[in-house]
Amino acid sequence: MAKVTVWNENRHEKQNPLVGELYPIGIHGAIAGFLTEAGFVAGTATLDEPEHGLTDDVLNDTDVLIWWGHLAHGDVADEVVEKVRQRVLDGMGLIVLHSGHFSKIFKLLMGTSCDLKWREADEKERLWVVAPSHPIAEGIGEYIELEKEEMYGEHFDIPAPDELIFTSWFEGGEIFRSGCTFTRGNGKVFYFRPGHETYPTYYNKDIQRVIVNAVKWAKPVDRKRPVYGNAQPLEKISAKGN
Amino acid sequence: MAKVTVWNENRHEKQNPLVGELYPIGIHGAIAGFLTEAGFVAGTATLDEPEHGLTDDVLNDTDVLIWWGHLAHGDVADEVVEKVRQRVLDGMGLIVLHSGHFSKIFKLLMGTSCDLKWREADEKERLWVVAPSHPIAEGIGEYIELEKEEMYGEHFDIPAPDELIFTSWFEGGEIFRSGCTFTRGNGKVFYFRPGHETYPTYYNKDIQRVIVNAVKWAKPVDRKRPVYGNAQPLEKISAKGN
Amino acid sequence: MAKVTVWNENRHEKQNPLVGELYPIGIHGAIAGFLTEAGFVAGTATLDEPEHGLTDDVLNDTDVLIWWGHLAHGDVADEVVEKVRQRVLDGMGLIVLHSGHFSKIFKLLMGTSCDLKWREADEKERLWVVAPSHPIAEGIGEYIELEKEEMYGEHFDIPAPDELIFTSWFEGGEIFRSGCTFTRGNGKVFYFRPGHETYPTYYNKDIQRVIVNAVKWAKPVDRKRPVYGNAQPLEKISAKGN
Amino acid sequence: MAKVTVWNENRHEKQNPLVGELYPIGIHGAIAGFLTEAGFVAGTATLDEPEHGLTDDVLNDTDVLIWWGHLAHGDVADEVVEKVRQRVLDGMGLIVLHSGHFSKIFKLLMGTSCDLKWREADEKERLWVVAPSHPIAEGIGEYIELEKEEMYGEHFDIPAPDELIFTSWFEGGEIFRSGCTFTRGNGKVFYFRPGHETYPTYYNKDIQRVIVNAVKWAKPVDRKRPVYGNAQPLEKISAKGN
Repeated sequence: MAKVTVWNENRHEKQNPLVGELYPIGIHGAIAGFLTEAGFVAGTATLDEPEHGLTDDVLNDTDVLIWWGHLAHGDVADEVVEKVRQRVLDGMGLIVLHSGHFSKIFKLLMGTSCDLKWREADEKERLWVVAPSHPIAEGIGEYIELEKEEMYGEHFDIPAPDELIFTSWFEGGEIFRSGCTFTRGNGKVFYFRPGHETYPTYYNKDIQRVIVNAVKWAKPVDRKRPVYGNAQPLEKISAKGN
Repeated sequence: MAKVTVWNENRHEKQNPLVGELYPIGIHGAIAGFLTEAGFVAGTATLDEPEHGLTDDVLNDTDVLIWWGHLAHGDVADEVVEKVRQRVLDGMGLIVLHSGHFSKIFKLLMGTSCDLKWREADEKERLWVVAPSHPIAEGIGEYIELEKEEMYGEHFDIPAPDELIFTSWFEGGEIFRSGCTFTRGNGKVFYFRPGHETYPTYYNKDIQRVIVNAVKWAKPVDRKRPVYGNAQPLEKISAKGN
Repeated sequence: MAKVTVWNENRHEKQNPLVGELYPIGIHGAIAGFLTEAGFVAGTATLDEPEHGLTDDVLNDTDVLIWWGHLAHGDVADEVVEKVRQRVLDGMGLIVLHSGHFSKIFKLLMGTSCDLKWREADEKERLWVVAPSHPIAEGIGEYIELEKEEMYGEHFDIPAPDELIFTSWFEGGEIFRSGCTFTRGNGKVFYFRPGHETYPTYYNKDIQRVIVNAVKWAKPVDRKRPVYGNAQPLEKISAKGN
Repeated sequence: MAKVTVWNENRHEKQNPLVGELYPIGIHGAIAGFLTEAGFVAGTATLDEPEHGLTDDVLNDTDVLIWWGHLAHGDVADEVVEKVRQRVLDGMGLIVLHSGHFSKIFKLLMGTSCDLKWREADEKERLWVVAPSHPIAEGIGEYIELEKEEMYGEHFDIPAPDELIFTSWFEGGEIFRSGCTFTRGNGKVFYFRPGHETYPTYYNKDIQRVIVNAVKWAKPVDRKRPVYGNAQPLEKISAKGN
């Protein structure tokens, strides 16, 4: 079973009573909870722990890292971000949630601004499945409906995703590519849009199912990092004149 | 007609008499030469000029930037690289040649190590067209053959390209995805493998044709950068209870 | 300049006075009209002409074929469809509009059912640009708004498109991948959703611009069909024991 | 565990003593053998059985269908092919091997000619992994080497694959996209090049591993076919004037 580390900034929970009440053990705790129920070994790590909770020991023992951040992207140390990036290239899966689109790690792996439109207006979101054969959509109906969410709208400034799995409809008139996969090195990356801190999104059974599916999909395969650098020929190379 | 700036590190030409003889006006000069003949407005810029020749005026007046570097990637100032990245996101095309795979700008836009296998052994390379409908392959036969080139072999640590146009066969037993397109923001990026400094690759008519085609393909379309940030609703949003 | 043939079933125009009034020279005539203004050589062909107007002479002289059909897909002769398919594989561009999603030619090139959800309810459609660097979106703002259109909803049963350029928001709660590119052989294919026969969609300047852009994008490049079949070796093959 | 049906034309085995000796229980038998060892429920079906062994009962009880054919593609009944296609769209996985590139089912699902270059010359093939994060490449080294195989060379006339996993180097100078994934409806399709009937390719442990991996990857997810057709609105649609 995959070992998952759920990383959370954990600032809204402390600063906003509404969020603290909604997620009493933090967004990380809520997510680790349903992952544990699903049979994974799920730990947590947060911004204010030493090394943000992402020590070498933790990272090396993590198959899939989940990332939620919003207020304090700038407080995440560059060295930690670079270690996470190396682990992704080495094969660790990465699931970036909601406002994590602006995290250092996601922007670094994408190479783009990762910017988007947004609006907080208690808005209905409907996530349509556009890739019905994909394991991340397993067990989900034709769409997931969330009564109230923050809106994220296009253009979403990411590279064209390898696979587009969900696209969101918003009440206020926008659409958004809300479930996108990417590969980077030996690692798989999944971006999943929902999860504004003031809504009970991570208690929604369909949202939980998607995250569970994504962990299964993103866990590393058994294969070493390729050999790079100067290489001996595998075949004889003919001598040539000048 | 597109305005092209050909950027070159221009160090091998000065340090290695063989290269200096092969490219007496520099790799940048050779490339700017055939682009001018093809009807483009082609300027050059090199590492040792102030701001590496890539001032705001130059960048703002450039539709497509071509990049050749090898020995001195680390000497390129981060501020200049970031300006180039912003221009790409704003729509400027970028063509990265050969050892430019390890340039700061390419690695930044890809998010991966961009590492690969390599070997200098006077090796035959045959670049097969795998996307015959693509404008970058226009006018090229089934393959381009180069008698002697440096070998680059897989795995090439890049994100899956949007389009794979050429794949190389090497005498020594390797293959390589040697013509790859990507989009980043409003900008188009093309990576093209051939062009080791000790070979007359940029005098090859097929190689020149591919670069000419790529400039046409990569030039910006007429469209502004999307509007990002807080957005007013386009439709009425219903009031909802708690 | 590209030579375009606009193919239309041309049945609604004859059977429904409302459509006949809206498109007095037919949908094909309206489309050929704005393409001619844009500088293309634009002819038309319709179902009830001999060979549906798609004789060898016409097809061989067509760079890009536009296809609108709805009521009478089954009346299109299989031999004509196969000839069109061969021409696409040989390099002719194909733009399939609206209800053409169910045409024989589109289903044959896709390999899937090409099915979708639909509803006729005078519904607002907003087509968001999700690929801002693509030439088909040149000159278009962040979205195209159509006051009234037929709804097409996901799941749209097509292969994952090579490039997703537009995604539609519909008033009734659905989304749709409404601008999709594909390549087949040497040919480029663009599917573009809008254009129900009872609405003045093809008089909309943005819709016209997209179709004009798509013709430019889809026109064949100068390259022959690859050589297939038994091939002589390009390199010496070593003798091997049993 | 996935239920696999291995379909084989089974003609070479009967007509060519060399092939009969190499594959005494048929290519289908050899493949079903290692799949059974890997823990799958693996049955076989061949051309000369009634309905080619692909009755409704068999197809409805198959999670993943493997297809090997060469001499007698034209003898496969169109009705059977259409039933297989429907099952793929409904979610059944399909793995097409070697000369199956020209099978009716593969050509129908691709929409292209599926043509290629070929040569029988006891040629070395080296399949390089270009997608190291993909589960189909799990447990495989940097490449698979086959001492003697038939050559298949580009251009391979298929749609751009969703994922390119292997690319082959051939001794005679060609390259080939030899491991390609596609999705069609709810189904996943994998094309895998090696397996000429006169070579012991299907006894190679790496080749077996790839096919085992591909079965796991291609098995259907738990999800129904989407609902297509006329749809009720999910949101209120405003009345509009003419």
